[in-house]
Amino acid sequence: MKTATTDIQTGILSGNRRMLAKGITLIESRRDQDIDAAQEVLSSVMVNTGNSIRLGITGVPGVGKSTFIETLGMQLIERGHKVAVLAVDPSSPRSGGSILGDKTRMPVLATRKEAFIRPSPASGTLGGVAGKTRETMLLCEAAGYDVILVETVGVGQSEVEVASMVDYFLVLMLPGAGDSLQGIKKGIIELADMLVINKADGDNLQSAKVAKNEYEKVLHLLHPPQSRVRLCSALKGDGVADVWDEVRLYIKAQKEGKHFEENRKKQLYNWMIRITEETILKDFRLNNRIQQALINIKSQLEKGETTPVIACKQLVKIYREDRVRTD
Amino acid sequence: MKTATTDIQTGILSGNRRMLAKGITLIESRRDQDIDAAQEVLSSVMVNTGNSIRLGITGVPGVGKSTFIETLGMQLIERGHKVAVLAVDPSSPRSGGSILGDKTRMPVLATRKEAFIRPSPASGTLGGVAGKTRETMLLCEAAGYDVILVETVGVGQSEVEVASMVDYFLVLMLPGAGDSLQGIKKGIIELADMLVINKADGDNLQSAKVAKNEYEKVLHLLHPPQSRVRLCSALKGDGVADVWDEVRLYIKAQKEGKHFEENRKKQLYNWMIRITEETILKDFRLNNRIQQALINIKSQLEKGETTPVIACKQLVKIYREDRVRTD
Repeated sequence: MKTATTDIQTGILSGNRRMLAKGITLIESRRDQDIDAAQEVLSSVMVNTGNSIRLGITGVPGVGKSTFIETLGMQLIERGHKVAVLAVDPSSPRSGGSILGDKTRMPVLATRKEAFIRPSPASGTLGGVAGKTRETMLLCEAAGYDVILVETVGVGQSEVEVASMVDYFLVLMLPGAGDSLQGIKKGIIELADMLVINKADGDNLQSAKVAKNEYEKVLHLLHPPQSRVRLCSALKGDGVADVWDEVRLYIKAQKEGKHFEENRKKQLYNWMIRITEETILKDFRLNNRIQQALINIKSQLEKGETTPVIACKQLVKIYREDRVRTD
Repeated sequence: MKTATTDIQTGILSGNRRMLAKGITLIESRRDQDIDAAQEVLSSVMVNTGNSIRLGITGVPGVGKSTFIETLGMQLIERGHKVAVLAVDPSSPRSGGSILGDKTRMPVLATRKEAFIRPSPASGTLGGVAGKTRETMLLCEAAGYDVILVETVGVGQSEVEVASMVDYFLVLMLPGAGDSLQGIKKGIIELADMLVINKADGDNLQSAKVAKNEYEKVLHLLHPPQSRVRLCSALKGDGVADVWDEVRLYIKAQKEGKHFEENRKKQLYNWMIRITEETILKDFRLNNRIQQALINIKSQLEKGETTPVIACKQLVKIYREDRVRTD
């Protein structure tokens, strides 16, 4: 039997993990009735969202994201926080479960009642691969989680999308100078609020320091004051608290300067615009008359009987007229 | 006094350079009446387009694109070709003229009647920065130019756009091993049909050879059989003819396998779809009722009174209804 949306709503607001999980499952569903129910739940808890620090974390496989999150998560719990970990894995579009979803990646954190760990399936619907993650994040906030860690692997568009939904974006790096700049995409560096060189311990410490120097030079060229480079060893626990302290201080300063709220509002608005434009294009692409007209236009284009701009005008006209007829 | 579009059309088809230039000026204009006239001209010559080899050329400033094009262009003229050079420079969005448009960059080629050199302004209208370049290319073909060289600097989206309108895409590289892989974006390598290491002469020859080896390893990982790496010295004229011979053989093979025509058709169709979708989104963004509704929705979103998905549905509904009313 289905749980009523009001029960899910009340459950989430009282911090009930099972109800939170049910709410997220609604969010992740692609069935029309579930989508409506999910929006009902989300809508009813919207005023209770937003009261968290949203931290994005990315890095190539093997950089130690799980260990970093486990260490950071446990330290946050000790400081009295409730931590939600959402993992976006665009490389496994179906369930998102196999790689990032495995709770055994964070064995200690997974057993704590103050932590909520959930893989977030790469969405094939609205808002790109991380579309569902945004809404899931909001439900977690409504359930009282005050630090949301959004994790992603460095594949395709997912970092850009995660960066656009968090307050602070960490990029984990491996030590190893010299060729260290080769492995990272220029785009990622520009998204990063902080580069964290992980595994900076033992024999790696020296090369991590050299890499830090190199990255600092690159960052200096890109956007001088904001970004920084830090060393840590998630495995030994060194430096992770320092990373968090910097995040916290940054956000405190942002809040004092009103930038924090402004940024959040802008992110929400931009996302809404994005999914609206996606919806309109989808409606155009699936329109029957457009699909029929395209058969002709395609053949005319191929024979040189029309130009792309003229064909474009024709299609736009057909789309307008079809709306008039069918509405 | 304005020239009649029929005169421009006849002029272009007879290879009149002045009329070709007038046609391109129409294409580049943003005035409504010019856009209609441009489409009239383009439409009337469409069946006379397509009979050329379209070669894209990119590379960072200083790699020697001008010298390469000058050398290649002169060799092509000696082989009996008519060569059009179109330069897309997204870094100068207004006229496109200052950097790439200067004919003194190719002093010898610019004096030849078999060559037509034209900067192509980065378009702020439909089809991205290279939207106008596509249509200009078609006019040049109608005027009898049978090799079109489309040049761009390695900035932003322009390479992707140029690659999507040509038959073959060359990326010019500087010699210099070791750090040679750092300077190039991964995306560009994936677009390249051939990497050409220019300035492979004198003291540079050895490092160019080392770089060639490195690039070949990278290409082997990315897409094994197609792409290749060649050395040349555009200044001394070494290796440029070999590059062209490879392009020619590649296209000959493509034509025999029917891939050539298929690819051209796909490019034209994709472009038409792209500008149509751009037009529809623009119509949505500029819609009066949408702009009015957004004021309210923005404030509701900020207060947590709605969700992005609910707001999205509202906007899509308003857009539909407004079309019905105004049509």
